[in-house]
Amino acid sequence: MLLSPGELEERLRGIGARRYHRLHPFHHLLHGGKCTKGQVQAWALNRYYYQAMIPIKDASLIARCEDSAVRREWRSRLIDHDGTADGEGGIARWLRLTDGLGLERDYVVSTRGILPGTRFAVEAYVRFVRERSLLEAIASSLTELFSPAIIGERVEGMLKNYDFVTKETLAYFDKRPPQAKRDSDYALDYVKRHAVTPEGQQAVLAALEFKCDVLWAQLDALHHAYVEPRHVSPGAFVPADQEPT
Amino acid sequence: MLLSPGELEERLRGIGARRYHRLHPFHHLLHGGKCTKGQVQAWALNRYYYQAMIPIKDASLIARCEDSAVRREWRSRLIDHDGTADGEGGIARWLRLTDGLGLERDYVVSTRGILPGTRFAVEAYVRFVRERSLLEAIASSLTELFSPAIIGERVEGMLKNYDFVTKETLAYFDKRPPQAKRDSDYALDYVKRHAVTPEGQQAVLAALEFKCDVLWAQLDALHHAYVEPRHVSPGAFVPADQEPT
Repeated sequence: MLLSPGELEERLRGIGARRYHRLHPFHHLLHGGKCTKGQVQAWALNRYYYQAMIPIKDASLIARCEDSAVRREWRSRLIDHDGTADGEGGIARWLRLTDGLGLERDYVVSTRGILPGTRFAVEAYVRFVRERSLLEAIASSLTELFSPAIIGERVEGMLKNYDFVTKETLAYFDKRPPQAKRDSDYALDYVKRHAVTPEGQQAVLAALEFKCDVLWAQLDALHHAYVEPRHVSPGAFVPADQEPT
Repeated sequence: MLLSPGELEERLRGIGARRYHRLHPFHHLLHGGKCTKGQVQAWALNRYYYQAMIPIKDASLIARCEDSAVRREWRSRLIDHDGTADGEGGIARWLRLTDGLGLERDYVVSTRGILPGTRFAVEAYVRFVRERSLLEAIASSLTELFSPAIIGERVEGMLKNYDFVTKETLAYFDKRPPQAKRDSDYALDYVKRHAVTPEGQQAVLAALEFKCDVLWAQLDALHHAYVEPRHVSPGAFVPADQEPT
């Protein structure tokens, strides 16, 4: 059954309401001030890999797109993450967060301490964007529809609750909401205009569910390793405040 | 530094001793009789996806191998899993296990109830075999060096502890130890003969670590969803004995 563009948007927003990682218990612990410093370190360390792969994901999308206008629009995402000079852009700002948390920069950038669950989920995302249709690749970015709200909660909660986090180390998040708003407005408009068959619309909905799973699985892995039962995969980061298990 | 073939084997066995999923708490719960029926169902359901992808993984390896003798040898793995007629082979035997546990066969085969963590880990394995060197692809199969021991523990523990498991439903495991022994003897001999540079040997060791991560991450995901904190990803299987969270 073909949905109207408005109905499609409603279904997409419904997926976010049910499956976005804002609902994950780890998010509540993090922004509610219930995490130890070690847990916040583990979150920032693992999430670095996701951040670092975003421009590779976006370049993969550009690389398979035959429409110059879409490529041009999508290019702004590369600029957001890689900046225009050393020390600029979203990845550099994420490293200011890991610096502020006392993690060695070389260790963070090497990604050798991340959980296998993080690596597999992030790689699944990059490959999805490389291998599925352009429509599905664009739809998989639509979690950004829901990110301004989570970022607001995260920044407010973290600043209030953690003395080891400062406004300066959270600079990454200052920039994101307007970028995410602009990007998700574009992507939402794109899928509403291009998902014009029932199959295309189902593929778009499934792509957003997939992406919610990618984010969710990362918090599952963190929760398992660092919250309960605090069972860290062999070789992954062990915070100073967590005994090896 | 170049290792002798014997030293390489020793390093490989050391990785198994430290990182094989036999050490995972979920394995201990499973074979120790500490799982509920719902947890055993969840394990069998998720593990089905791994089983179902094994011949795809093995065909991917054959598809990229230019040596007829290796292809011929590897073909036996396809026969082991797919059988020579309907209802035969490892996948069909795994479905007898899920049948015996009361899971709907269509539901199992659809894989729509598996955890995202399972899907991402298994896909990472298939892609590793497709994309890395043939040497690494072969080395990633070497977890089978360690599987006869885990299978022994699993079958004995499950038959003793669970009245909902029978020797007939565990038929999958009867066949595996000699197959795994034959296959891992071949693969171990192959990597000892072909990993003749320090880089090649490091790649072989890393491939086995990667594969241990693939197995480990699957049990992490199960443990998180069904043991502690029993927090099931949206859309995944919820056993009858587990309240939705």
